Amino acid sequence: MKLLTKTIENIGPLNQETMEQTRYRVDHLIKPLGSLGRMEDLAVQLAGITHQPYPKTDKKVIVVMSADHGVYAEGVAPNDQSITAIQTPNFARGVTGVCAFAKQARADVIVVDIGVAVDLDAPGVINRKIRYGTDNMAKGPAMSREEAVKALEIGIEITSEQIQKGKNLIGTGEMGISNTTASAAILSVFGGFDPSEVVGIGAGLSVDRLSHKAEVIRRAIACNQPNPKDGIDVLSKVGGFEIGGMAGTMLAAAAHRVPVVVDGFISTAAALIAVSLSPQAKDYLIPSHSSAEKGAAKATELLGLKPMFDMDLRLGEGSGAALAFNFVVAATYMVREMITLEEAGIVL
Amino acid sequence: MKLLTKTIENIGPLNQETMEQTRYRVDHLIKPLGSLGRMEDLAVQLAGITHQPYPKTDKKVIVVMSADHGVYAEGVAPNDQSITAIQTPNFARGVTGVCAFAKQARADVIVVDIGVAVDLDAPGVINRKIRYGTDNMAKGPAMSREEAVKALEIGIEITSEQIQKGKNLIGTGEMGISNTTASAAILSVFGGFDPSEVVGIGAGLSVDRLSHKAEVIRRAIACNQPNPKDGIDVLSKVGGFEIGGMAGTMLAAAAHRVPVVVDGFISTAAALIAVSLSPQAKDYLIPSHSSAEKGAAKATELLGLKPMFDMDLRLGEGSGAALAFNFVVAATYMVREMITLEEAGIVL
Repeated sequence: MKLLTKTIENIGPLNQETMEQTRYRVDHLIKPLGSLGRMEDLAVQLAGITHQPYPKTDKKVIVVMSADHGVYAEGVAPNDQSITAIQTPNFARGVTGVCAFAKQARADVIVVDIGVAVDLDAPGVINRKIRYGTDNMAKGPAMSREEAVKALEIGIEITSEQIQKGKNLIGTGEMGISNTTASAAILSVFGGFDPSEVVGIGAGLSVDRLSHKAEVIRRAIACNQPNPKDGIDVLSKVGGFEIGGMAGTMLAAAAHRVPVVVDGFISTAAALIAVSLSPQAKDYLIPSHSSAEKGAAKATELLGLKPMFDMDLRLGEGSGAALAFNFVVAATYMVREMITLEEAGIVL
Repeated sequence: MKLLTKTIENIGPLNQETMEQTRYRVDHLIKPLGSLGRMEDLAVQLAGITHQPYPKTDKKVIVVMSADHGVYAEGVAPNDQSITAIQTPNFARGVTGVCAFAKQARADVIVVDIGVAVDLDAPGVINRKIRYGTDNMAKGPAMSREEAVKALEIGIEITSEQIQKGKNLIGTGEMGISNTTASAAILSVFGGFDPSEVVGIGAGLSVDRLSHKAEVIRRAIACNQPNPKDGIDVLSKVGGFEIGGMAGTMLAAAAHRVPVVVDGFISTAAALIAVSLSPQAKDYLIPSHSSAEKGAAKATELLGLKPMFDMDLRLGEGSGAALAFNFVVAATYMVREMITLEEAGIVL
């Protein structure tokens, strides 16, 4: 709890002075005023986050958190739970979707077993297993309050280590069969939605099973009564270990003043947890894409983030965050590589 | 005319066999079926374009066409016409918006003076000037039919040369004060729109001048009567040299089976010309962003392209195309770097 508390205490406001400096430069670059739209806002946000008018985001990493979910037993996922354990080492091998996009974006991918249901003896997988998957939230809390804090703190530790190694741009990713169910539950609690409004097909659940998935979430919320004013309570009752880890990643990035890109639906659920613990952390989050998962639009809206692109992705893993890295880096190039109107001898 | 005719003759259909091969692989990659959405479609399109199941798009270039417009005399632009001449050398110097984004995407930028209103003696600017800007389309055709063909053929020559040098991914860009006026005119003709529906502020025209801009276009269409069934007629009467050059770039890319990314509003107008000359060329076009310029959404819809991202850009220059290069390259990485479910030992 001490690390979590300290991390949250370290999250300060964006640096207004640096933002004004960058806004001034952006407004005077060799282009019509405002013509680079949200790229300009992104550059200003990066300056505020890093306290640097010319921030660098050249050392990138996607932190993938992997864990299993007790609610799998309710038949909410189309695939076997063993997929989590099979797929987790593949992130370290560099052969999954996020790995392909990370290679394009010249980003590293690291993967953490924070609660996979079986032991993994796989090279490159960081073992921080809390236990063998959460409990079934339809029958009781997914995890204890202590475990929720532990999940958050593992995310903080792993991410702080990456930042200490020089990483200056972080993306969140995950793997975990049934984690769209936990995410839809979190979104339902924070947004006051009926689960039927936010459940989607995840990895490919047949549409006629969606009402069952919603009903399972409704039961989970009814039996656990998570308190939307208490992010740790929500995480422990209807969340997941990987979701806690991702929220920890976001808090650590914010505390270290490093921009962090939110991937799709599950990342957004984690962001809701992070922001409930530290509202100021929101300013350090950078959106990526508009996920094809049904609840995603409501989730990003509730969080107050506007996605940058829409490619109908619904893979998760951090795949959309890796693609979004290109926009973040391009915003830093805009500030650094373009000259000003004055430097070009143009009077408008 | 011979080069144009030959180029159009060389534009064939996408290779169905290669597309099926890539679709099969994409469907069997280590992810839920369809979960990488439009990135999957993009990979399949690239395979069809290049006739290669594992295409490479690692040698990238944005071809910027620069020219002036006689219609400037009608007071349709917020800035002085001299900006075209001042700005054109800046593409060769690498200091404009598209240059910054191209550096991020590791793409070259080349710039062609295809009709700037004054002589440019600037290192790196390719001089293919047709003449010193078009005529005022509000009073007669912007250029002769021969000049329209010449503009198209310059685009074809410049782009074919780049492809011969090994470029395997092309983007279209432009510079030309008043070219949103010409583009809105082209869109009005092909789409049957009243100009008021499609005129936007361009580089920052004050909103109370928009009805004047629309009226100028209305006059240009009334006095020239461009024939929407004849792309060369439309280009010559209400187009621009750089727009013809860009359409030529698209036709050359299609003829050489190289993917070409369409930037914003002006590029889309050029694409309408290209596709009117060769409907099959459309299959070789890759969309980029949803421009903030008012007519852009109607233009991409008319063309049948769905933008990939929305960052409220309205700079032009090819800036959005450069950003979109990252998605194209990522799609090729997806096919090449991800393994299949079978290779991963997963049975779904």
